[in-house]
Amino acid sequence: MSTIPDIDEASRKAAVARQAMLTKPSGALGLLEPLSAWVCAVQGSCPPRAFSRPALVILAGDHGVARTAGTSAYPPEVTAQMVLNFLAGGAAANVLARMVGASVKVVDVSVDADPAYAPPDVVRHRIRRGSGSIHCEDAMTREETTASLDLGDDLAATVIDAQADIVIPGDMGIGNTTPATTLICILTSTDPASAVGRGTGIDDATLTRKAACISLAIDRGRAFSHEPLGLLAAVGSPDIAAMTGLVLGAARRGVPVILDGIVSCAAALVARQMDPAVVAWMTAGHLSTEPAARVALASLGLVPVVDLQLRLGEGTGALLALNALNAAAVTLAEMATFDSAGVSNRDV
Amino acid sequence: MSTIPDIDEASRKAAVARQAMLTKPSGALGLLEPLSAWVCAVQGSCPPRAFSRPALVILAGDHGVARTAGTSAYPPEVTAQMVLNFLAGGAAANVLARMVGASVKVVDVSVDADPAYAPPDVVRHRIRRGSGSIHCEDAMTREETTASLDLGDDLAATVIDAQADIVIPGDMGIGNTTPATTLICILTSTDPASAVGRGTGIDDATLTRKAACISLAIDRGRAFSHEPLGLLAAVGSPDIAAMTGLVLGAARRGVPVILDGIVSCAAALVARQMDPAVVAWMTAGHLSTEPAARVALASLGLVPVVDLQLRLGEGTGALLALNALNAAAVTLAEMATFDSAGVSNRDV
Repeated sequence: MSTIPDIDEASRKAAVARQAMLTKPSGALGLLEPLSAWVCAVQGSCPPRAFSRPALVILAGDHGVARTAGTSAYPPEVTAQMVLNFLAGGAAANVLARMVGASVKVVDVSVDADPAYAPPDVVRHRIRRGSGSIHCEDAMTREETTASLDLGDDLAATVIDAQADIVIPGDMGIGNTTPATTLICILTSTDPASAVGRGTGIDDATLTRKAACISLAIDRGRAFSHEPLGLLAAVGSPDIAAMTGLVLGAARRGVPVILDGIVSCAAALVARQMDPAVVAWMTAGHLSTEPAARVALASLGLVPVVDLQLRLGEGTGALLALNALNAAAVTLAEMATFDSAGVSNRDV
Repeated sequence: MSTIPDIDEASRKAAVARQAMLTKPSGALGLLEPLSAWVCAVQGSCPPRAFSRPALVILAGDHGVARTAGTSAYPPEVTAQMVLNFLAGGAAANVLARMVGASVKVVDVSVDADPAYAPPDVVRHRIRRGSGSIHCEDAMTREETTASLDLGDDLAATVIDAQADIVIPGDMGIGNTTPATTLICILTSTDPASAVGRGTGIDDATLTRKAACISLAIDRGRAFSHEPLGLLAAVGSPDIAAMTGLVLGAARRGVPVILDGIVSCAAALVARQMDPAVVAWMTAGHLSTEPAARVALASLGLVPVVDLQLRLGEGTGALLALNALNAAAVTLAEMATFDSAGVSNRDV
C-alpha cells in the first residue's frame, strides 16, 4: 500500500478553470499552463504560490566501473574534489542555487576517498567507499541498499523540516551515467545501443568500453527488473539509491520534486517501481543531452521544461527550470481575468 | 555607413577562454556557454554581470486588416483594453516583468480607439489611429513610417537614459501577426503556405481568410523587398515600424535586445535590412509556435533560449529567457576554475 498521498485533483481542476479566465488567449502561455495546474495540485491550493524555499540535495558517490573499466573522461578523484568545490560554493550548481535562492546540502554517500578529505558532517552519512564494478560484481549489498534508501528519506525529512517547499536532487560522481543508463535500459526495456551517451564528454574508445560495461551490467541486472532493491544492489549505486529514497521521501511528505538529468531520471524510474504514486509529485526540469534521459522521461510521461543542451548534472537543469515553474505559478496567481480587467474575450 | 557599434570581440574571446577553465566538462552548460560569450561581447566585459535593469517596451497598435477582413479571433477593441490592463499591471507581461525586475513602458503607437481611453502620456506618442488594410492599401504613409521609426529610437533613448541594460520589445495588437507574417515572408522569400499561423487561436475559416490577406499583402509589398521604409509603409504597421526603431535604437546605443515572438522577429528582419550590424546585439528569447517566427530566427541565425510553446507576445517569451541569460552570466562570472578549486581536469 502506498505511503504517498495523492496530489490535489480539486486544485488542479481549479487551476484549469482559472487559466481560461485570464487575460490571454487560451493556451497562449503554452507549457506554463499545465505546469501551473501541477503546481496547484502539489501545493493543494489555487491560486498557487511561487516556490520560495527550494532545496538542492547533492548526493556524491564514486562508481567502481569508472575506476576498473575507465568509462569516464575524468579521474575518480574529481568526485571528492567537487564535493569540496560545492562546499566552497564554486560549482555551477552553487552559482545557480544562489541565483534562485535554493539551499544546498552536499552529502558524501559513497565517495572513494579517505574520509578525512571533507568535514565530518558531509562524510558521516557515507554508506560505503565507492561502489562495486557493476559490469562484473554487485554495486553493494542489500543492507547497504536499504541504508542508502533510508539515508535519502532522512535527507528529505531534514530539508522539509527546514521548510523546503520543493526538492531538487543533484548528482556528483565520476562514472555515474554508467549505472544510470543501465538502470534506465533495464526498467524501460531499452536497447543500450540507443541509450548510451558520452557523459562528461568521452571519446569514441571510451564510449565503446562504456557501452560494453553497460551491456554486461544489463545482463547482470535484468533478473531484478521487477525487484528494485535487488536491482539497485546489483547494478545501481549507493548515491542513486539515496536519490531514490530522497525522491520517495519528498513525495511521502507531500513535497514536489524537480528532476534533473539522467541520474535523477534513473532514480525516478526506480522510485516509481517502488511506488507508482511518486510520479505525480515529479516534474521534469530539463532535457539532458544524454539519450537515456529522454527515454526515461518518456517512460515517466514527463515533459521537460528546459532544453538548453545541458549535460552537467549537479541539479543544474532543475535549478534553471525553477524559474519557469514560478512563472507558471505567478501568472496564474496574479494575472487579471477578462471580467476584472474589462477585456473582451473571444466568442466561445 | 552603420551607426551601430561592433560588439566586443575581445570580451567574447575572453569568455570562451574562461569557460574552458571552469569546474565542469567543456560544453556541459550547453547553450549557456555561447550565451555567456554573447553577454560578455555586448557588455564589453569578461567576466560579465547579470542584467539587472531590463526594460520592457510594449508597443500597441491596431491593424486595419483585422477589422476589415476579420483575421483575428478577438475584436479590435481588445488592443485598447489590453493597454489599460498593462497600465493596471494585470497582463502576463506585467506579472513576468515583476518576477524578473523589468520596468514596463506601454506606448500607444497606433491603437484604433478614441484617445481619451488612456492617460495622455500613453497616447501622446500615437502616430495614427489604426493602420491601413494591408491586403488592399498601404499601412501608412512614408512620413508616418519615418515618424514611427523615430518614435522607437526615442523610446530606446528614454529607457537607456534611465539605465536600462537590456531592452525587450513587447507587442500588443489584435491582428499583428498578419503584417508580421507578411514582412517575414517577403524578407526571407518564404511561401506563406508554410508560414501562416493561428495567432491567438483562429479557426480554420479565419485562417483561410488570413492566409488570403497575407498573399495579397505579399503581392503588394514584394516590390519593396530591398527598400525597408517603403516595405513598412506598404505592408507593415506603425507599431512594427516603432519596434524596428526601438531595436535599432538600442543597438546604436550599445544596449542588447532580447527578441520575443513573431512580431519582434519581423521587426528584427526589417532592422537588419536597414543595418546588418544590428543582429549582433540581438538574442532570441524564445521559439513562438507561430511558424513564421521559426523562419525569421533561422534567417537571423539566432537560436532561441526558451521553447515553452508560448504564443502570447507582449514580450513574455523574452522575459522568460532573461533568467537563462543571467544564468549564463553568473555561471561564467562566479564559478571556480579547475586551478582555483584544486579540481583535476581531464587530459586535454
